[in-house]
Amino acid sequence: MRGIGKVSLIGAGPGDPDLLTVKALKRIQDAEVVVYDRLVSQEIMDLVPPKTALYSVGKKPKSHPIPQEEINQLLVDLAKEGKRVVRLKGGDPFIFGRGSEEAAELVTAGVEYEVIPGITAAQGCASSLNLPLTHRGLATGLRYVTGHCQRDVPLDLDWASLADPNTTLVIYMGLAAIAEISTKLVEHGMPADMPAVAISKGTTSEEQKVFGTLTTIGELAKAAKLPAPTLFMIGDVVGLKETLELPELTGSEGNWGEKRPHLEVING
Amino acid sequence: MRGIGKVSLIGAGPGDPDLLTVKALKRIQDAEVVVYDRLVSQEIMDLVPPKTALYSVGKKPKSHPIPQEEINQLLVDLAKEGKRVVRLKGGDPFIFGRGSEEAAELVTAGVEYEVIPGITAAQGCASSLNLPLTHRGLATGLRYVTGHCQRDVPLDLDWASLADPNTTLVIYMGLAAIAEISTKLVEHGMPADMPAVAISKGTTSEEQKVFGTLTTIGELAKAAKLPAPTLFMIGDVVGLKETLELPELTGSEGNWGEKRPHLEVING
Repeated sequence: MRGIGKVSLIGAGPGDPDLLTVKALKRIQDAEVVVYDRLVSQEIMDLVPPKTALYSVGKKPKSHPIPQEEINQLLVDLAKEGKRVVRLKGGDPFIFGRGSEEAAELVTAGVEYEVIPGITAAQGCASSLNLPLTHRGLATGLRYVTGHCQRDVPLDLDWASLADPNTTLVIYMGLAAIAEISTKLVEHGMPADMPAVAISKGTTSEEQKVFGTLTTIGELAKAAKLPAPTLFMIGDVVGLKETLELPELTGSEGNWGEKRPHLEVING
Repeated sequence: MRGIGKVSLIGAGPGDPDLLTVKALKRIQDAEVVVYDRLVSQEIMDLVPPKTALYSVGKKPKSHPIPQEEINQLLVDLAKEGKRVVRLKGGDPFIFGRGSEEAAELVTAGVEYEVIPGITAAQGCASSLNLPLTHRGLATGLRYVTGHCQRDVPLDLDWASLADPNTTLVIYMGLAAIAEISTKLVEHGMPADMPAVAISKGTTSEEQKVFGTLTTIGELAKAAKLPAPTLFMIGDVVGLKETLELPELTGSEGNWGEKRPHLEVING
């Protein structure tokens, strides 16, 4: 007879499968069941062994095919069947990921869990763009907010606090609200010409980006018809674009050694 | 004859080698030279193949054995020798990591580079503590600042903005300044009994943590003699500690499958 199982709440990162942590990859390859969100990329799902059971609980914007309560119950039920359950979420489960809501339900049901962090979209996009999130003299701090509203409630953010020009501001899920956000930030004192960038599907093969300013970025993102998920990064660090642009490449692939087909994880 | 080399600016994450990204691990195992900081854990340095040349450029608090300019020059020189250079930093190179300063020098010298993000300490510590960084109804956003001062300049932070009680505040390098930070935050309206936690060497085998409130955490961290690096996490999410505490374990190791000695990275 099997005992009660466990649930691993795992951040799948921004999309590039190579940006999974080693620990996340181990759990995925060892899972008996994987419960995954819409934001987990196909390349990452391809790493799940064929024998592993899959449950898609993807939420699309403005539609909730599976309520959060049912996802919670599914995790509890699978663990109580004695399964090694992987709950795979885009980004990091503890940054706008509702991981703690699921964890609380598991605790109530007496199910053991662990959390494995993931590279959050801000970090993935910053690396992919070669733009820092902090930089001496330009940004002494970093802030993440979500532009997503609960149903039709207007955004209730501390605008004066957000307008701090010494802090890089990253907005998750901001496509619908970016015009409102820009207007409020300017009203509260952030310079209208503050550099800004919108990145759609950052780190994936479908990555698109648009550069502008606080006041233009919303229109530019709309004109470019950027698909979700799109992240906005606002701050003087975005103005480092030219400074940090890669020098002209001398070869197509360089000497990164990408040809190595397999790699062993030591201490696995 | 070899062409010019490349530099990979890599985030080593918070310390646990399993929290490296797959991409970081590949680069480390393929590097010809590794230039590393003091904050990179020994377990991670053990992953560097024995034939790889190592340069320690660690900075200790209040002493700078190797000035940043010399580190920049070292990276340029090694790349110009045609080497595959890995520049390994604790956390994420683009969050309080000066990665962009090194990148700017590489661009000026005509050296190609890439940035590989790492799990930043806030995420590593949050996961390790089973405490979220955002949570519906408790924290709608997240903020990272550094408590580290340039020489003897007093901290110049936007205190009113930082005191926002709906945002989880994470302070990096705050051991020396935590008393001043707490006082200022209370003066600017953050509740004095806001839950807070100090985590030393989070995610490593030497992890220590102390729970308190905004007003007590500085004294508690001092009394516990927490060694650097210590991270402070302040906000209502820290009050979820009991809610998210693991249920009593039924076995020592459970069935995570930790016995698997090696693991192949697919698509490597």
